[in-house]
Amino acid sequence: MATTLISGGTVVTATGRSAADVLVDGEKIAAVLAPGSTLLGHDLAGSVDTVLDATGKYVIPGGIDAHTHMQMPFGGTEASDTFETGTRAAAWGGTTTIVDFAIQRYGERVMDGLAAWHEKAAGECAIDYGFHQIIGDVNDDSLKAMETLPDEGVSSYKLFMAYPGVFYSDDAQIYKAMRVGAETGLMTMMHAENGPAIDAMVTELLAQGKTDPYYHGVARAWQMEEEATHRAIMLANLTGAPLYVVHVSAKPAVEQLAAARDNGQNVFGETCPQYLYLSLEDQLGAEGFEGAKWVCSTPLRSRHEHHQDHMWQSLRTNDIQMVATDHCPFCMKGQKDMGVGDFSKIPNGIGSVEHRMDLMYQGVVDGKISLERWVEITSTTPARMFGMYGTKGVIAPGADADVVIYDPNGHTSIGLEKTHHMNMDYSAWEGYEIEGHVDTVMSRGRVVVNNNEYLGSKGHGQYVRRATSQYLV
Amino acid sequence: MATTLISGGTVVTATGRSAADVLVDGEKIAAVLAPGSTLLGHDLAGSVDTVLDATGKYVIPGGIDAHTHMQMPFGGTEASDTFETGTRAAAWGGTTTIVDFAIQRYGERVMDGLAAWHEKAAGECAIDYGFHQIIGDVNDDSLKAMETLPDEGVSSYKLFMAYPGVFYSDDAQIYKAMRVGAETGLMTMMHAENGPAIDAMVTELLAQGKTDPYYHGVARAWQMEEEATHRAIMLANLTGAPLYVVHVSAKPAVEQLAAARDNGQNVFGETCPQYLYLSLEDQLGAEGFEGAKWVCSTPLRSRHEHHQDHMWQSLRTNDIQMVATDHCPFCMKGQKDMGVGDFSKIPNGIGSVEHRMDLMYQGVVDGKISLERWVEITSTTPARMFGMYGTKGVIAPGADADVVIYDPNGHTSIGLEKTHHMNMDYSAWEGYEIEGHVDTVMSRGRVVVNNNEYLGSKGHGQYVRRATSQYLV
Amino acid sequence: MATTLISGGTVVTATGRSAADVLVDGEKIAAVLAPGSTLLGHDLAGSVDTVLDATGKYVIPGGIDAHTHMQMPFGGTEASDTFETGTRAAAWGGTTTIVDFAIQRYGERVMDGLAAWHEKAAGECAIDYGFHQIIGDVNDDSLKAMETLPDEGVSSYKLFMAYPGVFYSDDAQIYKAMRVGAETGLMTMMHAENGPAIDAMVTELLAQGKTDPYYHGVARAWQMEEEATHRAIMLANLTGAPLYVVHVSAKPAVEQLAAARDNGQNVFGETCPQYLYLSLEDQLGAEGFEGAKWVCSTPLRSRHEHHQDHMWQSLRTNDIQMVATDHCPFCMKGQKDMGVGDFSKIPNGIGSVEHRMDLMYQGVVDGKISLERWVEITSTTPARMFGMYGTKGVIAPGADADVVIYDPNGHTSIGLEKTHHMNMDYSAWEGYEIEGHVDTVMSRGRVVVNNNEYLGSKGHGQYVRRATSQYLV
Amino acid sequence: MATTLISGGTVVTATGRSAADVLVDGEKIAAVLAPGSTLLGHDLAGSVDTVLDATGKYVIPGGIDAHTHMQMPFGGTEASDTFETGTRAAAWGGTTTIVDFAIQRYGERVMDGLAAWHEKAAGECAIDYGFHQIIGDVNDDSLKAMETLPDEGVSSYKLFMAYPGVFYSDDAQIYKAMRVGAETGLMTMMHAENGPAIDAMVTELLAQGKTDPYYHGVARAWQMEEEATHRAIMLANLTGAPLYVVHVSAKPAVEQLAAARDNGQNVFGETCPQYLYLSLEDQLGAEGFEGAKWVCSTPLRSRHEHHQDHMWQSLRTNDIQMVATDHCPFCMKGQKDMGVGDFSKIPNGIGSVEHRMDLMYQGVVDGKISLERWVEITSTTPARMFGMYGTKGVIAPGADADVVIYDPNGHTSIGLEKTHHMNMDYSAWEGYEIEGHVDTVMSRGRVVVNNNEYLGSKGHGQYVRRATSQYLV
Repeated sequence: MATTLISGGTVVTATGRSAADVLVDGEKIAAVLAPGSTLLGHDLAGSVDTVLDATGKYVIPGGIDAHTHMQMPFGGTEASDTFETGTRAAAWGGTTTIVDFAIQRYGERVMDGLAAWHEKAAGECAIDYGFHQIIGDVNDDSLKAMETLPDEGVSSYKLFMAYPGVFYSDDAQIYKAMRVGAETGLMTMMHAENGPAIDAMVTELLAQGKTDPYYHGVARAWQMEEEATHRAIMLANLTGAPLYVVHVSAKPAVEQLAAARDNGQNVFGETCPQYLYLSLEDQLGAEGFEGAKWVCSTPLRSRHEHHQDHMWQSLRTNDIQMVATDHCPFCMKGQKDMGVGDFSKIPNGIGSVEHRMDLMYQGVVDGKISLERWVEITSTTPARMFGMYGTKGVIAPGADADVVIYDPNGHTSIGLEKTHHMNMDYSAWEGYEIEGHVDTVMSRGRVVVNNNEYLGSKGHGQYVRRATSQYLV
Repeated sequence: MATTLISGGTVVTATGRSAADVLVDGEKIAAVLAPGSTLLGHDLAGSVDTVLDATGKYVIPGGIDAHTHMQMPFGGTEASDTFETGTRAAAWGGTTTIVDFAIQRYGERVMDGLAAWHEKAAGECAIDYGFHQIIGDVNDDSLKAMETLPDEGVSSYKLFMAYPGVFYSDDAQIYKAMRVGAETGLMTMMHAENGPAIDAMVTELLAQGKTDPYYHGVARAWQMEEEATHRAIMLANLTGAPLYVVHVSAKPAVEQLAAARDNGQNVFGETCPQYLYLSLEDQLGAEGFEGAKWVCSTPLRSRHEHHQDHMWQSLRTNDIQMVATDHCPFCMKGQKDMGVGDFSKIPNGIGSVEHRMDLMYQGVVDGKISLERWVEITSTTPARMFGMYGTKGVIAPGADADVVIYDPNGHTSIGLEKTHHMNMDYSAWEGYEIEGHVDTVMSRGRVVVNNNEYLGSKGHGQYVRRATSQYLV
Repeated sequence: MATTLISGGTVVTATGRSAADVLVDGEKIAAVLAPGSTLLGHDLAGSVDTVLDATGKYVIPGGIDAHTHMQMPFGGTEASDTFETGTRAAAWGGTTTIVDFAIQRYGERVMDGLAAWHEKAAGECAIDYGFHQIIGDVNDDSLKAMETLPDEGVSSYKLFMAYPGVFYSDDAQIYKAMRVGAETGLMTMMHAENGPAIDAMVTELLAQGKTDPYYHGVARAWQMEEEATHRAIMLANLTGAPLYVVHVSAKPAVEQLAAARDNGQNVFGETCPQYLYLSLEDQLGAEGFEGAKWVCSTPLRSRHEHHQDHMWQSLRTNDIQMVATDHCPFCMKGQKDMGVGDFSKIPNGIGSVEHRMDLMYQGVVDGKISLERWVEITSTTPARMFGMYGTKGVIAPGADADVVIYDPNGHTSIGLEKTHHMNMDYSAWEGYEIEGHVDTVMSRGRVVVNNNEYLGSKGHGQYVRRATSQYLV
Repeated sequence: MATTLISGGTVVTATGRSAADVLVDGEKIAAVLAPGSTLLGHDLAGSVDTVLDATGKYVIPGGIDAHTHMQMPFGGTEASDTFETGTRAAAWGGTTTIVDFAIQRYGERVMDGLAAWHEKAAGECAIDYGFHQIIGDVNDDSLKAMETLPDEGVSSYKLFMAYPGVFYSDDAQIYKAMRVGAETGLMTMMHAENGPAIDAMVTELLAQGKTDPYYHGVARAWQMEEEATHRAIMLANLTGAPLYVVHVSAKPAVEQLAAARDNGQNVFGETCPQYLYLSLEDQLGAEGFEGAKWVCSTPLRSRHEHHQDHMWQSLRTNDIQMVATDHCPFCMKGQKDMGVGDFSKIPNGIGSVEHRMDLMYQGVVDGKISLERWVEITSTTPARMFGMYGTKGVIAPGADADVVIYDPNGHTSIGLEKTHHMNMDYSAWEGYEIEGHVDTVMSRGRVVVNNNEYLGSKGHGQYVRRATSQYLV
């Protein structure tokens, strides 16, 4: 097995930074050492196959994107990134693990869904991948299946309070699933929007001729995110289930999460880059049908109500614990354009898996979060939250050698014609300039990206069996 | 310089744990390595002077007690532990760094106070030590002196809202000091109790013949802690000063801190073992004058109001960030007994510097906090909070080799006749049984405690120059 | 038309009290005068048909019970009081107006329901009555019918978040109804309990063999009342609908209401005597099947959680605005006993219409609320809330002469064998002793109760057409 | 004694309105009657000396301004309205009672202060007047004097958390005074601003050359109002004292009051017209020295932070209970101009006693509050709050005949050259247009203003002995 010494860099963890070398032996990290390439007189640099010079750069654990939807069927089409294209784009951006969602649809069996997703991903991925399980039909059979998920390396499942007729669970179903979740030690992930009320608003708006993408954001009012978040919290309170709310975008929803945590509940929140940077007015409200590019749910929020500022603050205060992408890309042509004249037919989703590490690093440059917090919210916390820490999310002996060398003096220009590797015909982040650069990406000891060159291969990525959330043990 | 390999243990950090060996070279940690005692074929175990076997044990960064008062003058007497006796007791208990308080009294100059404390500590300490600076007389001269504290390695200062006529600052003084604190990057530490109102209550109670130690707790009502905490927060809000509230004991005070953090302020809270375990009724209310043993300020709180439970919860939810001791020991005979017949004359203080690591570990055993959180609140966060991280608070290459080997299968019985090393004639923790044991304590590469034997020496401990709090950069 | 002078009493209003005489001319109050029976030299006492001596007594506006269910079909049986027996009992207790609920069931038309209730009540009532409209099936037809309710003198309608399959509305239906409510100026009344989750709990408990009445209270957990209250508030926030939550019993639900009002929303809350006096442990948890007497929804709450104390406090602070009974009586024999062995089959309801004025007056005696607040929460606010003030709820010229003479030196013993006039075979208030007594009750100028004698007659009561809530204009 | 019939109007109370005539007999209201001028056939109109036609107009209880400072010494000058000019201006504006502040200064005796104020007012007033007592020097003597205040008809006293060296009480003094207040049944009134911190800010700003009136508002930051409000609440919580916070201007201060009330404390808040209409930017920030016209404490608040909107909302939700003026007029020439070049030397105060009823009525026109709420916050609540209800604050038999006939079809233009009767050389409300008009003002049965003519006389006004706050009994 090959050995590598990453030397001269600054190793950044969730709690601090230090000048240190990292020794990789095969797929694992073997040691973290004081810089200098020797140890007790032993010449380490001379003993390894490769030395990577990280002088002046940050050495961080590879990014973990805990919320992606590769080739997900939605509204009659399918997310445009396959596991192959999506994980390759992730690698380009310094993400070395994704956790995607296997789906049980109405009338289907849970284990069939999980098997189908294994089949889609196996042999396709550039980086490692795990699965959460969507339970789209809570019934006696699926409740029983939930109990066996831990044996499959799946320690989390997801319910939807939105999308009646598709993934929606009513409160009785949520109650029952959470009871099983609490007993089984599964993390309950929740899409927290009041779907029935939102659908009534959608009907109302369309009847009024309000069909532009902008009204997607109007219909999915923050009140209905706040409401569903509170409801999920109270059902979790009653059942004892730990709760993780996905793609939080509204300030009042964060306040509900914060209150629940202050009250001692095991409640967590995830946000996404789009809720930190983009807005109802600036993007969803773009001229004509352009806004469709940014149709996702929960929607972009109004800048006038300061949701974005509060979301950055919440990342800093730990009222929001981590950042994922909810990567769910659709092309404008042939997909998003299904919704011309009816915003409700626009496939919901934004593609960001490639840019998360950069976009969040820009928050460090802008003084919104610390360097340590960057590592924490993009890698360490996702690993702990979803039972992968030790193997992933940390630079420590015994961990997988998923390592990124990040250059704070580099520069990254995001744009379709530049270095866009996601399978989309537009970029939701066109024109964003990042004051930093992903130089080198190592996945389980193998350099997959280096100096703007892709060195990886499909099939290198392996399935990650996940244990119980480490926040619960 | 001597080299040591700590092998076979489980290294625990604030974020996780892993099987790893720790290589110590002189005073520093040289490497953290995958277990096995070899690296790339180099025989490490054979290359070092000493191998410490940590099999089945936890290897953690040495404890940091950020709030002690060795030989502090108070009420006509002096805290009974000297720097020599106090730091030795700390070492026995797995604490390898203390941060004590240098004092400027009314009419004195700040730098004179700091110099005096340096003189008291120099050449006396078993472990490393730093200083916070008490500003007991905010005036033009002391405000100017505050600006030079960072050059002295002092990145934090403390004010008192209690003790009128002794350390008390009024709100104008607090405002002025916080302005300087904000500009200088100093952490403002606050004793948050409304002293004038409390003193009025004391007078009232004594006039009613209520002179027992119990009334110390009645007079220092939680409302006056909550009030002062809120006041300090608002003054910090106005001045932009970061704020650290010491010895938080009341649930409503925690709620004020939590609200301020949710609101984005840099506000932090410390609690102490006594507020987690002991109560107004059980200890302060003990028969006769016995309660004097537990007279400290803030006081022990009523168990009926569930302050203790909430404090544990707050440690878990990070509404309280860390645990110190406020170690300030007085003997019953000749010191505490000054207050027979008048609780207000009892010297305020409890001695716990020896037991903090054990008492908090028992919280892990009892399921109150996780093993990682134990390390975080006793070592990593104190280091980050007070600008020592990297050197202290972490097991990583380049850090001081302050390491504790803790045995989860060991046992510790606390009691005066057992293994009590503090200079007190009673133990505030008599009879407490801990399901764990401090086996080995290393301070800057030197083993100072091993197998219940003290191997340290006075003068080994060095002054720690501290940088700006790492939560602020 | 007959004239009456009520002389010598203390007239109590929502804001104060004064020594004053009340002159009644026919069905209306003609004047409120300084005591003395003369005016500008005119001899009033000598000019009237009757003089009622109220010396030493309170003269108050007749009680308004805004929440009753006479002869309501429920769970295969019917509430045991008819409009005849129920309104007679109300009169006995000093209540001179009720507002009952007309019902639209699933598949029925709204106006048919209203007509049916008019038919039940017409010619039967001892006192005046109005109707709220239950919308049990929100659809295009019923939404249209809602718009015509004001023309029928019905200015409020009620939805249920509980009872799936019976009265339940889902959130889309609530959204649509509230939109109409907001535009039409109707008060939205809400039964706020999360029915689907509660029903899942009921199933779970029954499956565990937990079939006693006590488990009715366990299943209907306060979390599910708090949750539904918050959800109703957010839907009201979104739609602009004013909201009135019925039978609030849980402290956290009150906190949601208070927060919404502090936030400027038109949100109101009603509680009932049972939530002020009775508890899960003391009544629902009574030996054997006895607890069935107190099965109602929302349920009695745990005394350990201090809901009752908080409810009294909320009445004082106006976080709860008024007190109704939710009078819905069922006999133990033949009705409640349908639920032996299965608490979910016990008809839900308690009978209190006769005792509300007395039970709340006891709160005055006990120092919980002021005398003025008693009048406000039992009469003046209900009148204002539901668009009757001026005609009802006040002693002022032009108002209906609905007047009660209440003797603070009298005494009332509640009990089945004493002076129980409701059509029930038990009293939910057996053994309660009240330090006051309803001496005289006048309904629209006619004395219907005097000195423990019933002087009324069925058919005297008339339908009250109600205007828009006076809190909204 | 003369008799008057006010006929044809709409009597408005705190809870509703009704068409009714009001019969006045001497100084008292004798009856409120159904309109028509006859009663049981007796011809009332023909029996009285005078009939006032109120057709199409509102008949309301005379306004009560519970916070005025006539001829108050302040900063080396004296408020420019005497009791004569000030009460006459009040009468012009429909206010028939003021409660002014007698003052005990440092080193003075309480009863001497009260006597001095009696002397100033006796024989001078156009309308009735009462006194609160300022305790400017809390000591054993003044604490003893407080106990006798109720015998003097003074049921409230005021402390200052601002103005160190003038009226300031420290927290020990507040604690002691509140203890006496709680036992004696006195309402504690509080000027809630953190004076010491504010004075430090003033010094800082002046040293920076920031001397314009605008900086008065900057120095008295909302944080220091919120802080002091919270502190007062906690001291009240501890001592059991009821608390009334004067001139609340900041949204966060209201939130503290609301939280305390929701928590069951007897805490009340007053605001003033200036905090509802005026702002830091628009008035205090006026060109040059103009802003001095609006220098008052608490200061006008920033419009950007929406304090004004929140204050209106709080009046509606009863988070603020009433409106007074804090009338404390100073002329620009010779008084306000003492502060040219140093805002801290500008006498603090605005004159509004003449305009309160009109300015608040405009809130009715603007849809901010209801007609009933107007009466409640300007008359009924002040009467109840300060122990005058029954005699004042209500139109009911036995009450003083303090009655205003207000014409909703009239118009009032406020301005110095128009109908300004206060002794000031400018109007703080210049240019305000009111869609209503005070037509007739009756004070204890005597018409003192009618059709823009003043018919009163100095010396008509009598001292009002006040009882315990009616919210406390």
